[in-house]
Order: sequence, then C-alpha cells, then structure tokens
Amino acid sequence: MAHRIAVIAGDGIGTEVMPEGIRALEAAAKRFNIDLEFTTFEFGSCDYYLEHGQMMPDDWFEQLKGFDALFYGAVGWPDKVPDHISLWGSLLQFRRQFDQYINLRPCKLMPGIKSPLAGREPGDIDFYVVRENTEGEYSSIGGKMFEGTEREIVIQETVMSRTGVDRVLKYAFDLAQTRPRKKLTSATKSNGISITMPYWDERVLEMAKQYPEIDVDKFHIDILTANFVLHPDWFDVVVGSNLFGDILSDLGPACTGTIGIAPSANINPEGKFPSLFEPVHGSAPDIAGKGIANPIGQIWSGAMMLEHLGYKEAADAMVTAIEDVLSEGDSQVVTRDVGGQGTTESLGRAIAKRL
Amino acid sequence: MAHRIAVIAGDGIGTEVMPEGIRALEAAAKRFNIDLEFTTFEFGSCDYYLEHGQMMPDDWFEQLKGFDALFYGAVGWPDKVPDHISLWGSLLQFRRQFDQYINLRPCKLMPGIKSPLAGREPGDIDFYVVRENTEGEYSSIGGKMFEGTEREIVIQETVMSRTGVDRVLKYAFDLAQTRPRKKLTSATKSNGISITMPYWDERVLEMAKQYPEIDVDKFHIDILTANFVLHPDWFDVVVGSNLFGDILSDLGPACTGTIGIAPSANINPEGKFPSLFEPVHGSAPDIAGKGIANPIGQIWSGAMMLEHLGYKEAADAMVTAIEDVLSEGDSQVVTRDVGGQGTTESLGRAIAKRL
Ligand SMILES: CC(C)[C@H](C(=O)O)[C@@H](O)C(=O)O
Ligand SMILES: CC(C)[C@H](C(=O)O)[C@@H](O)C(=O)O
Repeated sequence: MAHRIAVIAGDGIGTEVMPEGIRALEAAAKRFNIDLEFTTFEFGSCDYYLEHGQMMPDDWFEQLKGFDALFYGAVGWPDKVPDHISLWGSLLQFRRQFDQYINLRPCKLMPGIKSPLAGREPGDIDFYVVRENTEGEYSSIGGKMFEGTEREIVIQETVMSRTGVDRVLKYAFDLAQTRPRKKLTSATKSNGISITMPYWDERVLEMAKQYPEIDVDKFHIDILTANFVLHPDWFDVVVGSNLFGDILSDLGPACTGTIGIAPSANINPEGKFPSLFEPVHGSAPDIAGKGIANPIGQIWSGAMMLEHLGYKEAADAMVTAIEDVLSEGDSQVVTRDVGGQGTTESLGRAIAKRL
Repeated sequence: MAHRIAVIAGDGIGTEVMPEGIRALEAAAKRFNIDLEFTTFEFGSCDYYLEHGQMMPDDWFEQLKGFDALFYGAVGWPDKVPDHISLWGSLLQFRRQFDQYINLRPCKLMPGIKSPLAGREPGDIDFYVVRENTEGEYSSIGGKMFEGTEREIVIQETVMSRTGVDRVLKYAFDLAQTRPRKKLTSATKSNGISITMPYWDERVLEMAKQYPEIDVDKFHIDILTANFVLHPDWFDVVVGSNLFGDILSDLGPACTGTIGIAPSANINPEGKFPSLFEPVHGSAPDIAGKGIANPIGQIWSGAMMLEHLGYKEAADAMVTAIEDVLSEGDSQVVTRDVGGQGTTESLGRAIAKRL
C-alpha cells in the first residue's frame, strides 16, 4: 500500500530544495521497495496569501489530515507578509492542529563539514534536541492595553499543562533510553522565570523516577547555551520548552556547522494525525532564486520521514549517502555554504545517485 | 567626598572573589586619588536565609538606598535554598526596587584567553549586550490551576510596557552612538511569540527614527544565538528583553572564552537609586571553598563601577591591568580555568600590583 505524502514547498528556497528532497526520496523508495505517493499543495506560501488573503484555504485540515506525512519546505517572506502572520497561518497551525507535540532535531558533526568550534571532529558532537511543540511560550493568549499612549502595556501568557509537559518529557526519556549514553539534559530557567519553569523542573523530577537508568541533569538556558559552545560533547538528549527548544535547535546545528543542512521532524507520536518533516533553515529570501541553496536539510528531513514511516534501513541509507557525498566534497558538486561551487541540483543529484 | 559602596558577597565563590575585587579597587582608588568607602552586609546569602527565614531583612531597601553603588558577589546555593527563592529574595529585588533597568555586559575577546571558536583573535569580538532588567519574561504574575491533577496548568505572563521597552532601547541606541561602528542589533522572536515580540519590534522601529545614523538590524533569538557562534564579528551593541538578554549575555562571554571572568552592571541610569555591579558567573558550589575561583569577573565589575561613578580613566586602567596579567599568563599566577595553577588570591594580587 502506498504511503501518501503531502508536499508543501512554501516560499523562497523551500521551492528550490523540495525537488531534491523528492528526488532523493524516490531513489531511496526504489532501492528499498517503498511505495511513496506525493501530492503537491500550493497553499501555505506567502504568494498564496497575496492572492487569497489567507495562508491556507479554510478546509486545509480536511484536505491534509488523511495523509501519512507532510513534507514541508520553508515558509515566510517578510517583505510580502509579516512573519507572525505567515507562520501562525501555516506551520504553527500544523503543529497545533495535528498535535505534533514533538519537535525533534539531530545535532551531529558530519564529515566534510567544518565546525565553527575549535578542535571538534566528527563523532565529537552527536545529540538530539527534543522540543515541546504546541504550548509554552508560543501562546495565543494576551493583548495590549492603553494602546498608543505612554502607559501602553502588552501581555502574553506562557501556558504549560501537565499533559503537554509530561508527554514531551516521556518522549525524551524514551529516546534517551535507546541511546548508548542514556543521558538526558533538561533546559530550564527556574531561577528567573519563577512560575512555569519551576513547574517544568518538578515534572522532570517526577518523570525521572520512572527511568532510574537515565542519567538526568539540568541547566538554566543561559548557561546551557554557553555549554553548547564550550562542551557540546556533554549532551546526548536535550529536552526543552517550545522557546528553549527552538533556540537550542538552531544553536546546536550552528555549533556543528550545519545550520543550513539540519533536518527536523514535527511528530504526532500516536499517529492520529500526520507528522511533518522540514529542514531547520528558513526560506532565505537573500539567496532565493539563485539555485545555490543546500538541499541536504530537505533530504535529511526526508530520511527522518522514512524512519517515522517505519523504514529505518532506508533512512540510514539516505543519511549515509549524505555523509558520503559530503566526505568526498567534490567542489563541482557541493554548494557554496560547504565550500564548493555546485548548485542545489548538482548536490541533490549526487546524493540521489548514491542511493 | 567619599563614594559609599555597599558590599554583598553572597554565596559560594562570591565570598572568595569579593576580597580580590576590593583589593583591586583599593589599588585603583589609591593611584587615581578616589575616595571609596566600603560597608559590608551579611544579608543576601543563603546562610542568612537559613538563619532568618528570608534572604534579607525587611528594611533592606532603607539600609541600602543611600549608597552610591552596590558591589555584589554571587548568590545561590540550590542545596540550601531553591534558586527561585534565593534569587527573587535578593538580586532580582535589587534590580526591580532600585529600578536598575539596564543590564550591561561587555563581550570581548581578551588577550591570553582562548576562544572556543576556531580562528578568532583578540580584537575580532568586541560588543555589548544591553538587557532589559526589570520586566518582560521575568514576571511575578501567574499561577497554577487544577493542582495535582491530570488537568494541571501553570500560566506565567510576560509583561512589556512602553516605558520599560523604550528606555532600554534608548540606552542601547545611545550606547551605539558612542561606538565607532554605530551598529545596533535587536533580539526578537516575533515570528513565534506573537504578541509581546511584535510589540518589541514596533518600538525598535519607532526609536530608530530618532537615530538615523545608527545601522539597525534584528534577528530572531534562535538564529541570533547561532550567529553569535558563526559571526560574532557582526555585533556591536545587541539589545534584548530580560530573557533574551540573559541568554545572550552568557552565550557572548562563552564565545569569547570568558564566561568565568565576564562582568556586568545593573544600572539605574538616572542615579535615583544605587546601581549594582557583579560578575556574570554564579556562586559555583562545585568549586567553592577551594580558593581557585577566577576573581577577574569581580575585578572587572569593579572597573565598570568606577566608570559609572565617573572615573573612566581609573576604570580603563583596571581593564588594562587585567589584560596585562592575562597576556603575561604566568602559570603560577593565573587560575586553572585560564590554564594556570594559581589561586584566587595570587591572580587578584597580581592585578592589584599592576595598578
Ligand atoms: C541568577 C539569575 C536569576 C540571573 C538572571 O537570570 O537574571 C543570572 O542568570 C543573571 O544573568 O544575572
Ligand atoms: C519560523 C518559526 C516560527 C519557527 C519556530 O520558532 O518554531 C522556526 O524557528 C522553527 O524552529 O521551526
């Protein structure tokens, strides 16, 4: 039976890297005998917004909910639509309405990629950031008062629920369980943010009781970001709230030199709704249209999608293909961001060919 | 007329680095003919809490408000008192009650200090983080509901006021004005945090109109932390909310290898209340009592205090003394964290001697 994949390329380089993501997936599908069926949607982009006055049609949920996964490019083009409108009208809706409460991002120092950190080699850095993806600091409650006057104030509420916190912690502890080092680090800020963050800490302690074999520690987010730079080798599975996870899952890939190629998965673990797979990078208006964007983030996200669909071997083969092409580092093939003169397509084709 | 300085050493290594801070200040005072008068307070430490059930006496405000500055060590000892209690009972009270609405932290790659970033040399990194220090994410409004049940939720409000936002922006723009590059970077997250952060952006745009000569840009906090690692040379003055400023002012010093020696100033620019000067590092229970803590953060904070009191030349001399001793890097003198075998005292004495 075919796995039905909804494809939304979005804006900017999203539309350029997407074909390479599909090319690599098709190559892997062929080799491992997987039946993938892609359906492309035009909505979820700023151009769609300019035409329709909204990012997606009213029935987007109905249109998409039956798919097995969403394969997503990148959304946002601030000169056309303010970010908080384009994002809250698309990506953040998927995460919430499809209850994709896990955002999972690997941070791995890859061969052929230069880390900005001194003296770090492939193998030195290899951890996951598990981010809560539906509540917390990304809330839609709050407002403005005394508008336009000197007394103006704005308020926005951070909301954490036991359900929301416990389920992301459980996922992170379960993931740590599968890793050789069995280590979990919690991101907090309970010394300064005195209501929600002590609650987060409390739930971590509670959950830890059920996982006696896991080595648990915590850091306040300020020093944790410092430790990503100073001691990236300390980390194995790092779990954080929506905002802290967001920060750490950009900073982590930056430390491994892979901000332009890192993948991410937005997962509904129960499979009640489709999960969504997207590169960490955004739509990058500055380099859009030039054909030079690195497609690896999209391809690697495709690998995470295959793993999620149950094809671990095929997923591993995709990551190996990426690693091989990067190790080789043929300057006619790899893109500028990793030191070559290749194009989105040349790099995408090379990876597909390996497969 | 003597400048009256209130001294609160606090906990852990706070009590060890403070004497060296005072030693250096006394040396500078002697050389530049400045009259400093130190008064030591025992409160504001976890030991005080254990004895009195509160971090400070009820009349702390009255006792301290007449001083010209507070010279502060570090507070917190989680095994004795939970952090959110010790911090909200001391440091965070000072910041709020004394309206120290600016938290200023230099991020500077110093001679003799190895940056964890590959290929960065002294001179490459030299910027300030200006942090809002009284409102924002560090709010005291919120609470818990359905306690102890599956439906449990906690809520905490982020509060930004026009007064609070504008005054920190003004300070940051004014500071950028004095710098050769005249560049200001705003930390935001308006694509995800959809009420307070778009407001922050709005106020930045508004303020920028009054400073046409300043080159203004903004980054979302996730990619901004990445850029601290990838392009630290881009930054000159970085301004952020209470939380974002907190994160960036730990990450910045980490990128310059100076997390253990960076200083900070909590400033009430109008001088209506005393300002507070403290190292960025905490009380470090793990190395407390061993006499090996690096006192430079405390000494450098003393330099910021002298500058605040109007003695720019003396402040510069203190920073030069620090740089000289670090450049020399005598391993009998400098502490372990910077590659030596010296003690808190040997390093403190060496700096005082230079002065
Ligand atoms: C100790 C803590 C409450 C404090 C803060 O977050 O403000 C510290 O991290 C700082 O930066 O001064
Ligand atoms: C675009 C933005 C709203 C989004 C987020 O903050 O979640 C992005 O940074 C991400 O990490 O997926």
